Amino acid sequence: MEQMNTAAAKPIRCRAAVSRVAGQPLVMEEVEVAPPRAHEVRIKILCTSICHTDITFWRMEGIHPSIFGHEAVGVVESVGEHVQEVSAGDMVVPVFTAQCSECPDCLSDRSNLCSKLPNLPGGMPRDGTTRFSSASTGDPIRHFIGVSSFTEYTVVDVTHVVRLPAAFPPAMACLLSCGVSTGVGAAWKVAAVEPGSSVAVFGLGAVGLAVAQGARMRGAKRIIGVDLNADKFEIGKRLGITDFVNPNDTGGKTVSEVIKEMTGGDGADYCFECIGSASVMAEAFQSSRMGWGKTILLGVVSNAAPIAIPPRDILRGRSVVGSLFGGIKPKNDIPMLAQKYLHKELELEEFVTHQMGFDEINGALELLTQGKSLRCIIWMDGARENGRAT
Amino acid sequence: MEQMNTAAAKPIRCRAAVSRVAGQPLVMEEVEVAPPRAHEVRIKILCTSICHTDITFWRMEGIHPSIFGHEAVGVVESVGEHVQEVSAGDMVVPVFTAQCSECPDCLSDRSNLCSKLPNLPGGMPRDGTTRFSSASTGDPIRHFIGVSSFTEYTVVDVTHVVRLPAAFPPAMACLLSCGVSTGVGAAWKVAAVEPGSSVAVFGLGAVGLAVAQGARMRGAKRIIGVDLNADKFEIGKRLGITDFVNPNDTGGKTVSEVIKEMTGGDGADYCFECIGSASVMAEAFQSSRMGWGKTILLGVVSNAAPIAIPPRDILRGRSVVGSLFGGIKPKNDIPMLAQKYLHKELELEEFVTHQMGFDEINGALELLTQGKSLRCIIWMDGARENGRAT
Repeated sequence: MEQMNTAAAKPIRCRAAVSRVAGQPLVMEEVEVAPPRAHEVRIKILCTSICHTDITFWRMEGIHPSIFGHEAVGVVESVGEHVQEVSAGDMVVPVFTAQCSECPDCLSDRSNLCSKLPNLPGGMPRDGTTRFSSASTGDPIRHFIGVSSFTEYTVVDVTHVVRLPAAFPPAMACLLSCGVSTGVGAAWKVAAVEPGSSVAVFGLGAVGLAVAQGARMRGAKRIIGVDLNADKFEIGKRLGITDFVNPNDTGGKTVSEVIKEMTGGDGADYCFECIGSASVMAEAFQSSRMGWGKTILLGVVSNAAPIAIPPRDILRGRSVVGSLFGGIKPKNDIPMLAQKYLHKELELEEFVTHQMGFDEINGALELLTQGKSLRCIIWMDGARENGRAT
Repeated sequence: MEQMNTAAAKPIRCRAAVSRVAGQPLVMEEVEVAPPRAHEVRIKILCTSICHTDITFWRMEGIHPSIFGHEAVGVVESVGEHVQEVSAGDMVVPVFTAQCSECPDCLSDRSNLCSKLPNLPGGMPRDGTTRFSSASTGDPIRHFIGVSSFTEYTVVDVTHVVRLPAAFPPAMACLLSCGVSTGVGAAWKVAAVEPGSSVAVFGLGAVGLAVAQGARMRGAKRIIGVDLNADKFEIGKRLGITDFVNPNDTGGKTVSEVIKEMTGGDGADYCFECIGSASVMAEAFQSSRMGWGKTILLGVVSNAAPIAIPPRDILRGRSVVGSLFGGIKPKNDIPMLAQKYLHKELELEEFVTHQMGFDEINGALELLTQGKSLRCIIWMDGARENGRAT
């Protein structure tokens, strides 16, 4: 089987949305996707969505042309040598972190960041080379954090894929491949929110709302959402937010003062920063309870100002913890979250605010940058034709 | 018994080392120590020692005259109304944090900071008043963080005392009342160091060396001590330090670079900052391992610069946690540590580098500020006469 896949594998020509210039609209191009090498898997993408991290890197100079996108689901088209874990036809989600299952980090309960295969900028994790080239010029195109899903086909290392049951709804699988898992994981695994706790969530995008979901699943009593956009409260309420603070509408008080008032003067047991702003991180920290308050940082930031923590304030039993991917070990935890969705313990549908076809991907980018969508599912085979559009 | 104590209680005249002017030698004076009020205990101090926190406050303007000192042991002389927990003749250590055993913090495993009775500056914790006055002028003298042990007699709230067995060696009890418990507790309770771990300790005073003790008791494999004073390595080795880094002798590398080299490129699993310097805190953080490295801040600082943490560095699974008193709940944990000493699991003798009489207390202050002593035990009845001097 493995031999057959390898023998059969030839380059595939397909469409991809290539980022040619930082911050400029993606360009729909024909690209060539090389066959998977050893330990690699070529995937036909079913659908993808866009996460703020895509936007952060899309705007960054010096890393173009790239194929962005890292929230997706697809079907294995072919596999390279030494791939036993999945085979052609399997439904998989690609993920932006590796899980080699061999290194000290993968073997430890305490880390979710593979130390054998860290991301290599622009290339495949084992050798840094690319499987993408322009079909017209042959020039190479860069990969993105081990995934690159704004394309009909991609190649991903086997340590970056998680198999899901074939019958699992693709759009819901797509959500689990990054943002929602990050938020739920942060509440579930990083904070280990305790029943009856008070929680404050700074930033009510998909990640922040997923934190609220996770906190509710863990039995939090009070879940305070903080966002400048009052529209977020309605959907927030359906996902677990119990109270809302708009920083523009506090009558001159700081957000931490308001949160302390809401929590009997104490502050929240757990504060989650889902934006990636140093000043919001400082405010989240100040909103945490003395004695045991934990501030969890989820926001991915590039060259952000340092977080400033006055030593006197942290010494009284507070802590700050950072996490990537919400402490999720992909191959263990994503199937567990998928089960929770099937058992109706985890709400996912609410996160899908828009759906469209691949051709409309620049519109989807715009919706997210304007804060108008949580997640827009982009269907590779054209959503409208398939009647999936909302 | 309670009635008798209360009825018998009269002011006591005794000697105290009063701090009259910030940073100037303490003045041996006759003071009057009022009887204990409700919930209070008057204690005859057997011996006291000096901690860096005493020095920090001794140098601070605007809080004099004060009776400093908060590491001590004594015998209960009399008790106020409603005191059931101890009675005259009991051996007790006074401690600088309350444990009311009723508030949410005292009832939680996660906090060691009583939220019912926080320290009140200069006075008793329930009403802020003082039990000390000058015997010559009658002018009040301030208390210090609920203890004030640089005096033959003191009055302490019952929530601030821990009873120990009468036969327990007083000098060892004195050590347990603050510094050593703080360090051992930070390793044991705050970090919960795991067997086989690597640990870095920044600052090898009594607290840092107690961290090393605690880490060794928890089974740490590698315990790296960082200090500018190379003399600390000898005593450090006896208390668990396995490797030594002198920041002045790294051949131009940063301390975090050296620690990463010592730990196979990773950094230490647990980094303890025992100095109270924002720049050392930042270096300790940078020395911690990606994935799960924990930086524990123990240093008490006043108006220190904020710790600056680059968000990119913390996001990869690192955390920073602050603690006062090493997470120790005094009434639960100090008797436990006393048992560990009696069972020879906890080494305490090494911490006592000097002993002297109460009259020589200014010499003891000088030894500590010059970094020449770990702990100097100051005997109230005169060490030399009793043959206890080393």
